[in-house]
Amino acid sequence: MISGIQFAAASSGIKPSGPDVGLAVFREGMHVSSLYTRNRVKAAHIIYNKKMTANPVRALLVNSGCANACTGKEGIEDLQLLAERLAKLLHVNPEEIIFASTGVIGKRLPVDKMLGILSVLTKNLKEGNLELFARSIMTTDTHQKVAQEIFEGKKNYTIMGVAKGSGMINPLFATMLAFLFTDYPSSPQAVRKEFLFAARESFERITVDGECSTNDTILLFTKKGSPDTKGMKPFCEKLSTLMKKLSLMVVHDGEGATRVIHIMVNGAKNQKIAEKIARRISISPLTKTAFFGCDPNWGRIMAAAGDADTPLNPSRVEIIMQGKVLAREGKEIPFDEGHIKNMMNKKEIDLIVNLHSGNASFDIYTTDLTYDYIKINASYRS
Amino acid sequence: MISGIQFAAASSGIKPSGPDVGLAVFREGMHVSSLYTRNRVKAAHIIYNKKMTANPVRALLVNSGCANACTGKEGIEDLQLLAERLAKLLHVNPEEIIFASTGVIGKRLPVDKMLGILSVLTKNLKEGNLELFARSIMTTDTHQKVAQEIFEGKKNYTIMGVAKGSGMINPLFATMLAFLFTDYPSSPQAVRKEFLFAARESFERITVDGECSTNDTILLFTKKGSPDTKGMKPFCEKLSTLMKKLSLMVVHDGEGATRVIHIMVNGAKNQKIAEKIARRISISPLTKTAFFGCDPNWGRIMAAAGDADTPLNPSRVEIIMQGKVLAREGKEIPFDEGHIKNMMNKKEIDLIVNLHSGNASFDIYTTDLTYDYIKINASYRS
Repeated sequence: MISGIQFAAASSGIKPSGPDVGLAVFREGMHVSSLYTRNRVKAAHIIYNKKMTANPVRALLVNSGCANACTGKEGIEDLQLLAERLAKLLHVNPEEIIFASTGVIGKRLPVDKMLGILSVLTKNLKEGNLELFARSIMTTDTHQKVAQEIFEGKKNYTIMGVAKGSGMINPLFATMLAFLFTDYPSSPQAVRKEFLFAARESFERITVDGECSTNDTILLFTKKGSPDTKGMKPFCEKLSTLMKKLSLMVVHDGEGATRVIHIMVNGAKNQKIAEKIARRISISPLTKTAFFGCDPNWGRIMAAAGDADTPLNPSRVEIIMQGKVLAREGKEIPFDEGHIKNMMNKKEIDLIVNLHSGNASFDIYTTDLTYDYIKINASYRS
Repeated sequence: MISGIQFAAASSGIKPSGPDVGLAVFREGMHVSSLYTRNRVKAAHIIYNKKMTANPVRALLVNSGCANACTGKEGIEDLQLLAERLAKLLHVNPEEIIFASTGVIGKRLPVDKMLGILSVLTKNLKEGNLELFARSIMTTDTHQKVAQEIFEGKKNYTIMGVAKGSGMINPLFATMLAFLFTDYPSSPQAVRKEFLFAARESFERITVDGECSTNDTILLFTKKGSPDTKGMKPFCEKLSTLMKKLSLMVVHDGEGATRVIHIMVNGAKNQKIAEKIARRISISPLTKTAFFGCDPNWGRIMAAAGDADTPLNPSRVEIIMQGKVLAREGKEIPFDEGHIKNMMNKKEIDLIVNLHSGNASFDIYTTDLTYDYIKINASYRS
């Protein structure tokens, strides 16, 4: 818990069950660092938030079940109306409120339902309600995702984080929503740099299906006030730790996933090459399906690496699965198929692809591709 | 049938059942036009064939069940040995024989088994054996793929084609193997140009899973002799027709596919933009899964279009499914969900994405993503 940061959540009926609207309110204004989707089609809350230059902010209203994307100017007007009504209840300016949505694309927010529960939300604000708030942003997630880190500067500080994301998880910016709150005071510029760095090392290194959402949003709320420079280093470390933890929770809860594969490409001439090959393998349906079947089909990994739009010398490639070499110099090293299958029948799998062409490396986490991914997504809207 | 072109197929035991080695023999040498995978990891037959500059050729030996990819120099030597033995049986030069393989990556060819059936193959050569030959290259294909066209120049000519391909079908070069044979004589240069054009319009416009094979090969065999210029135009037309037919057979037999979606992106500023958006939609797992579930989830199509690494003005986009407008100016046009679901419950679906930003267009065929794709690929090797 952080003193002065309160949460609430309630059910407005957007989703058939569970809380679907969440509210975070800050006793004092907080600085916001934001990172949004790279998709050219952006949800209304992203377009809206970007206009709210009035940093710091006093509240964050979130909802699940409806992405409020592809809703035109009406989608923006819906947020304006919500901001006005909520501002009155909270005695703040409408410009001090920002939003985040997740869910089905192309449908307007049920504004009347949401307006109807604003007073319930504001009445139920509590510092201890973070888990409830986390539940309000779940869609196909199977559980809420909350984590917390504590660190020391001039005094003790806390960073709390929540995230959601299960499908439409994309390799370049792989979350639907993540929010981080801290009572650590710092200059917004210094925080922004560390925030982007931590995002690159966490949410940008996971993938479930290679899809890029219209709604991807990470927001970091930091305390206003004179910077505690003594705490900067531990803050950065803990911010990275927390974002990594949350991103791993997201990939582990990937739609239909039964395992998470940690793909490490090393021995590359430069990091760009390592990254391209790691990302290409991470979205290969044939490779991901083979992982589901515990099939040490290293040929598919080679084929994906060869299709990464980057130079590759196949005759140098070594492939190591769970510590066991499957191929070296681009050719198979005889292995016991049954033994490897057993070693792959785990929740976490390590895959090393060594290009033996240099010293650069890149790693990414992906999931297997399963029947349940199809089941979940064949009729997500109905 | 084409006089002087004979086929045979036999089972060598690479696959548990059915013919797995095929042979085509030409009474007189034929010119070859070839197009190979763009994957950096290339099967042995591709590396080998490229060295066989001795155009024209007298025979083509094919096999399924083993890709002979990622097999190093041993994989090449295996082909050399096969060429030498087969050349003796056929009384031709080893350099006049080329190869094509498809199947599991990373395993050496069972050369002894293959050598053992060469004499059976050469004894059973018949002009009427094209269908049997087509069966010998099937892997996860559910049926053989054969087509034929007849056209007129100074006399009547025939083009016969066979193809295989079901998974690892990639949007930029989407076949595993296709072979075309014609008794039409033409200059190799003129034929090559038309061949590449026809490939761009056919095999390069289908996708099943966005995967790029190590073995993709299209070979066009044309008759030696003085060109029949009168037949050039009908030849080109029929070559295009035949390759289009074969490519559609491949996508319709896509692994696990229950439907084929014809994605037409138009109203683009230029063709490159239309192509990028069409290809991005065609490999979107969420979109393909929605097609499986007959879910008119146009928001996923918008999200895929917005992630195509090309400019997009979402507020102009119109999406038309089976002739019915689902979205216009980037927003939903109210529709009867049940009615559209019924319209989508078909083997062939037309999807138009109009960008309303210009006059360029591009179209591509894709499949839905289904339980059976997972089933087929979770343990393809076992």
